Formats: sequence, structure tokens, C-alpha cells
Amino acid sequence: MLTYSFSNIGSEHLYEHLYKCLKNDILTGVLPAGSKLPSKRGFAANLGISPITVENAYAQLLVEGYIFSLPRKGFFVAENIIPCAVTAESGNTAAESGCQQEWFADFCSNQTEPERFPFSVWTKLLREVCGDRSRQLMTNSPASGVWELRQAIAGFLRQFRAMDIDPERIVVGAGTEYLYGLLIQLLGRDKVYGLEDPGYPKLGRIYNSFGVERRYIPLNNGVPDHSLISSGVQVMHISPAHHYPTGSVMPVSARYELLAWAAEEEGRYIIEDDYDSEFRLSGQPIPTLQSIDVTGKVIYLNTFAKSLSSTLRISYMVLPQKLAERFRDRLSFYSCPVGNFEQYTLARFIRDGYFEKHINRMRNHYRRKRDILLQAFANSGLPADSVLQQDAGLHFLLSPPAGRSDEELAAAAAAEGIKVSFLSQYYHDPAAAPAPQLAVINYSSIDGEKTEEAVHRLLKAFGCKP
Amino acid sequence: MLTYSFSNIGSEHLYEHLYKCLKNDILTGVLPAGSKLPSKRGFAANLGISPITVENAYAQLLVEGYIFSLPRKGFFVAENIIPCAVTAESGNTAAESGCQQEWFADFCSNQTEPERFPFSVWTKLLREVCGDRSRQLMTNSPASGVWELRQAIAGFLRQFRAMDIDPERIVVGAGTEYLYGLLIQLLGRDKVYGLEDPGYPKLGRIYNSFGVERRYIPLNNGVPDHSLISSGVQVMHISPAHHYPTGSVMPVSARYELLAWAAEEEGRYIIEDDYDSEFRLSGQPIPTLQSIDVTGKVIYLNTFAKSLSSTLRISYMVLPQKLAERFRDRLSFYSCPVGNFEQYTLARFIRDGYFEKHINRMRNHYRRKRDILLQAFANSGLPADSVLQQDAGLHFLLSPPAGRSDEELAAAAAAEGIKVSFLSQYYHDPAAAPAPQLAVINYSSIDGEKTEEAVHRLLKAFGCKP
Repeated sequence: MLTYSFSNIGSEHLYEHLYKCLKNDILTGVLPAGSKLPSKRGFAANLGISPITVENAYAQLLVEGYIFSLPRKGFFVAENIIPCAVTAESGNTAAESGCQQEWFADFCSNQTEPERFPFSVWTKLLREVCGDRSRQLMTNSPASGVWELRQAIAGFLRQFRAMDIDPERIVVGAGTEYLYGLLIQLLGRDKVYGLEDPGYPKLGRIYNSFGVERRYIPLNNGVPDHSLISSGVQVMHISPAHHYPTGSVMPVSARYELLAWAAEEEGRYIIEDDYDSEFRLSGQPIPTLQSIDVTGKVIYLNTFAKSLSSTLRISYMVLPQKLAERFRDRLSFYSCPVGNFEQYTLARFIRDGYFEKHINRMRNHYRRKRDILLQAFANSGLPADSVLQQDAGLHFLLSPPAGRSDEELAAAAAAEGIKVSFLSQYYHDPAAAPAPQLAVINYSSIDGEKTEEAVHRLLKAFGCKP
Repeated sequence: MLTYSFSNIGSEHLYEHLYKCLKNDILTGVLPAGSKLPSKRGFAANLGISPITVENAYAQLLVEGYIFSLPRKGFFVAENIIPCAVTAESGNTAAESGCQQEWFADFCSNQTEPERFPFSVWTKLLREVCGDRSRQLMTNSPASGVWELRQAIAGFLRQFRAMDIDPERIVVGAGTEYLYGLLIQLLGRDKVYGLEDPGYPKLGRIYNSFGVERRYIPLNNGVPDHSLISSGVQVMHISPAHHYPTGSVMPVSARYELLAWAAEEEGRYIIEDDYDSEFRLSGQPIPTLQSIDVTGKVIYLNTFAKSLSSTLRISYMVLPQKLAERFRDRLSFYSCPVGNFEQYTLARFIRDGYFEKHINRMRNHYRRKRDILLQAFANSGLPADSVLQQDAGLHFLLSPPAGRSDEELAAAAAAEGIKVSFLSQYYHDPAAAPAPQLAVINYSSIDGEKTEEAVHRLLKAFGCKP
């Protein structure tokens, strides 16, 4: 219940003081838009004042538009009177990264277009789950996730990745970042962790935040170079199906070499990140490292961030048997960080075939979008080999016309409302990034209707014929 | 898509081989109950066999009851044919803790009774949010949580705890455990962390898993004893509103002493865990340490685990200004681990007054349940002072008749289907736990209709007149 002090109010009327307190709380966002004010009677009793006083204060706020009333429901704070809250709400992520710009199109984003998420199926399944799983919804999930979800994931991996996995070896987590934190605890902080260079910058920040030793291993066409051997690395992160951001696919021979490297020493492991394998748009799907590993050295990671939405925060990993047992021994005291509602809903979404349908629909959608992009690039006068790695997943590389630095091109694109990143930014030492200069084109979250205009603007910024 | 190999099948018919593969996958849970089989035509094309072969295999499975068909929908795996999966689903948490017993009543659990969770309001609000927040639902949340939720939490803290908090200082996390992991990264792994002894055992395991130094500080009536001064502890965890499991409330003078301790040295902090303050059943609510701290030394933690459900996995912390800035600088690269759907739904649940109503309803419910328990204990012939700390929250302590060890009493209770823990188990060194012997009675998740019978059985096990 709201509480205000009525001492030291001087000659002010009680109602006036209360009115000012409430108004101040509304203006500063303490009482946010839509929130319900206490009942006059209860509020009065709580403050030790007369209900009439509360009524007078409410009446004043009502007249001035700070609050509104609903018959038989009470008084509520009005909308649109807190300018700071509105700004913060719409742009908080941007604010935190120090950037307030609203982009016309963001070729760096991995977010799902709102109109593509299956909201009605999702809410339908959640209602179903609330109906027939209420007991399970209130029962604490095991550390590795609820059984139904792990079973559904095992079925999915079987169907889509030809992986034959015991659900007991699956661990569900609140995003891949969370799973990396768990893996550091599972494998040990005394291990040396190897990262792809170039690679996903966030990983290095996680290892750094956990205070573990890390080394950057240069990649040649998606394959860690010979420096891995002498690096002292014991746990190597790799994304063989579709390296981010180069798009390289690791050849089979290199996969066996990497497995051989891991088998050479006790305690070596490979973390295989298979983050967008569902969206390989052409060619045969490539078997995972996990599925050709007979030595129990591969930790397989995947996520629903690309295939469903990054805002669900659900990822999972498949542990080798030995590590699955170690997880049970050492880390099963943790609660699974994903709420039961979403775990059971997602389990049903997969089990009932909606996930497969969604992926097929999205694959077609992304293929169309990619084709529009590629056609526009083809028409732009750029050389035919300017677009690289167009088949492997939800991004590709674009070689801009020579002559300007990454920074100059990014600035020119920003002036057109286009956000784009460059390959060099994914190197541990961007200054040492090798040629050629390449832009990274993530197209999954570009609004369908804006695609052509977005390409037009990007090419204009790059100085091509749009 | 499911894939099976048809090489080396010898003299077997193709359909017979396919039938066996599918049946095996159904029996081992690879294809879980309810999952949809591929369409005959698509499956045949994928396997390079005739649709007739698939049809024959499906027909055999259908006849034998492994699958069923739905008109115009296809074939699905039947229910109730996977005995291992059923067991695992219903008792996985228990299985992981090495205990398969089904309890009649569990006085150790903190789970919400399924019939008490506001399922229909929750799903209604989720539908609303899907309708009018679809864009935000697909927009990545800031590391500290979506603005609407932090604003709602600030409003709640204002109303219920008289805390005046800028939502920018609130960090939402997937359970308190997750927030402890973040705090270790925020405050530093080189710090010495202090834990209450007795206290919540999981905390020690988290610090251990992160490899940070920890010390156990003995408590006297909820107050850390003088050993804190010379312990080298820099970050002290404390639950002043309602210590778990003793139920002690820290007196105001001790609170100021603790704040003075923190202020003495740069880098000292207090982590105030306010985990069930919403359910103080009698007496005045006690101001938080956070609200009397003017030096920026208190990190306030709270959770929706007790007030709503532990299976939601939503907690939050309020950081002092300086740490909030450090969080932005160092840790905002993380994604908030709580999914947007639950963040926006919870925000609306709080904002629209449902949370306040829910807490009031639950408080009454718990009070009734506690009264039944206390009445039963009073009738049992136990001395009047056998029940301790009955007002502060969702558990209290019970002094059993003398003569038997904790282990003997727990075993006797288990034989009655009752799970109960003892104060000694919450000591870092249980063997060194001081007298008196006390059982910890968590009553929040005891099924309403089972309460009387549960008390009857507990008292019987303890050798009291039931």
C-alpha cells in the first residue's frame, strides 16, 4: 500500500499534500501508467486520514488528467504523461549500448519479425498446458530442464540432425550465454578455452567475466589453424556447420582432425555451436561433429533464438555421457533457469509438429527474402563474386567497392538509416583483420516490406548503382 | 526428417525393416508419445523407397497400437507405451536428487499448490501482451530486464516495502541463483564472501562452483556474530527480514551495526535477501536494510518464487547506484535470461493490481493453513513453547520431544510419508549444530486438504499425541 508522511506539511491542506505526493509519483514514474490507485477507504485507513481527504485528492488528479476512473473498478494512472518512461521503454537496449538511433533496417540484428512469430499457436498451447499440466507447472524443474522438453528436443535432433541422443544428456538453459557459464563451472576454471578468430565477440566477454584463460585461434576457411596444437587450448569452441560471421562450413576431413586433436589428451573438449543449422537454404545438411564423435569429446550446443525467437531465451546442450554424469554430480543443485510455462509450451510446440512447420515456413520466407536481396545486389553493378556464403544460413558476406574504410562505409550506411557490421569487427584484433574487406549481412530480421528499400539504401551508401 | 539406413537389411522386407526401426524409436522414447510421423509421401522420398512401403510399415504399427491416425492430420505416436518415460516425467527432480519417494506431505518444499496459481489471469494477460506488445516481445530485452517490468517492480517495492527505487537500478534475473552468479562477476572473484551459518545450503554450493572464497559466519538470533569483524569477509549475505531457517528477525540496532561494518571499508557490501517478506503474517512490516542505507552498500534481492511460483524463475535485485553503473559498463553485454513473454506478462500482472490481490489472498490462505497446523500442534500435548517463529513467514520451527536424533525422527516421519528437515542440516557443519533440536516446518506447499492428516502423521512420527 502507498504510504506518505503527513508530518511537516505546514499550512497545506491534507488533500493538497496527498495530491502533490501522488502527482509527483506519477510524473517520476513511481506510479506507472495504468497502475491502480488504492481504494479510497483502504488508503484513508492506511494513512490515518479521512476518506473525504483521499476523495478530494483523487478528484483533483482526475480533473487534471493524471488519473482516470473505471466504474466499479477504481482509479488508474493515465497513459502518456511520463515522457522519460516512454523513451526508456522503446529504446532501452539501444540506450544501454550507448546508441539511441532508430534504424530503418538493421543488418546486424537477429531478432524475429513480430509478424512471423506464431503467437496464436503459442498462446493456445500455453492455455492447454495450464489446463492439463498445472501440477507439473508448479513442480520444480530438474537442473537440466523438464523431461517433456528434453524428450521433444531429442526427437527434433533425431529428425533434423540425425542425432541419436538420450534426453538424459540434454541440458536446457536460458540462452547460450547461460550454458557457457555452466560449461565453465562443469569443465573447470583452470582450463584454457579456445575461441574462433574471427568469431562471436560475446563469447570472449563471457570467458573474461568468469576470469578464465582464453586464446584466440585464427581460422582458415572455418578451420582452426595449426596454432591450436601449440596453444595450450583444452576446450575449443567451434561452429562447423556455419561459422559466424564468415559463413564457412568446416570440411569433413578437418572435422576428423579436430576430433583427433581432442582425443589426444584427457580433458580436451570441443564445444560445437550449431546455432542456425535449421536454416541451411541449399545443399545437403551436414552431419554434426557430435554425430561422428565416438570418443565422447563433443559438447553440442543449439538454440531456439534463430529458429523461434531470441527473446524466448531457450537454448540447450547435449553433453557426452561422462560430462552428463559430472553435471548430475556437481551442478544439479541448480534450478533450470527457464520457467516451466515456457518449457512445457515449447515441448508441446515441438511434439505436435508446429516447430517443424514453423521452420519450413521460415525457411521459405528467408529464401524469398535472400533472393530479393541477391537480385538487388546482382542488379547493382557489383561484380558477381561480391556475395559470399549465401547458402549456409541467415547471413552472408558482401564485398563492397574498394576505396573506403569500414568506418567510412558504416557511417555512410548509418546516414541512410542502415546498420551494418564488417568482418573486421569480429576479429579479436580488428586492426589485424586480413583483406578482403567484407560487410556482414544478417537479413533475418529485416522487415519483409522494407527489404528492397533497405538494399537500395545500403548500396547507395556503398556507392553502388542502387 | 527421420532417416534410417536400408543397407545391410539382409532378407528382411523393406517395410518390415522400417516398421522395426520406428517401433524401436517409439519404445525407447526417441519418438515420444503424441509426436507426428512424417507424411508417407515425404518420408518415402527422403528414404528413397516407395510410398507403399511406408504405408505398409505404418499399417503394421497402427494395428499393433504404437501409432494412431487422425483424419487429414496424419499419424501420431500413441500414448502410454513408454513406461520409462512416464516414470522419468513424473519424478525427475526426485530422481536427480537420488530419491524416488512420493511424499504424502513435504515440509521441505517451497512449491506453490497448483490450485493457488492464478492460471486464468496469467494466460489472459499473456494473450493481451501478445496482442498489444508483439513488437516488444520480439525485441531483445536489456541485460537488466524489460523496462515495463522494472517499472512495475519499482512500484511494488514502493507500495509494499516503502522503498523508493529508480527502475534503472533494478536487474531482473532467472532466479536468485542466477543473480548470485552475476554478483560474483560484478563484485569480483577475488572478494571473500560471507554466508550465514545456519543458512540456505545452495548459496555455498554456488560460491564453490564459481571458485570464490567463502566463510561461514555464525548467527546469534539472526545477527552475524563478532567473528565477522576478523573474518576477512567483504561481501556478507544476510536475510534480515526473516532468516531461513531459524525465522529470526534482525533487530534494528544490529542492522545499523552491519551497515557501519560495510561502511568501514571500500569494497564491502551487504547482500540483503528479502525472499518472503510479502508473507509476514502478523506485526508490522520491518523496513529493509536497503531503505535505511545511505552509503550505497546494500544490494537488495527478492524473488517471485514465494509470492507467485518458484517455477517461474524470476527474481530481481536492486543495486546501489555505483554498482548499477558498473553493471552497465561490464555486464550489460549479457542478455536478460528471463524470456520476454514472462517479463511482459508479469509486468502487467503487477501493474494491473493482480499481484497485490494474489498476495492478499495467499496471505489469508497461508494464515488459515498455519492456524490449522498450530492448533493441531497445540492439541498434541507438546509444550506451548514448542513452536517458534510462527509469525514471520512461510515456515516455523518445531521442537520435538527429546530422546531421538534428527536422523531417527526424519526416518520415522519418512515412514509416515512425511518429509521434514532439521535445523542442524542448515549448518555448514551439521555435527557442530548447537542445541536445541528443531524441525523446520515449511507449510506453504502442503496441500490444503491434506494439512490435518499431514500434521497427524508428523506428530505420530515424533511420538506425540496426534
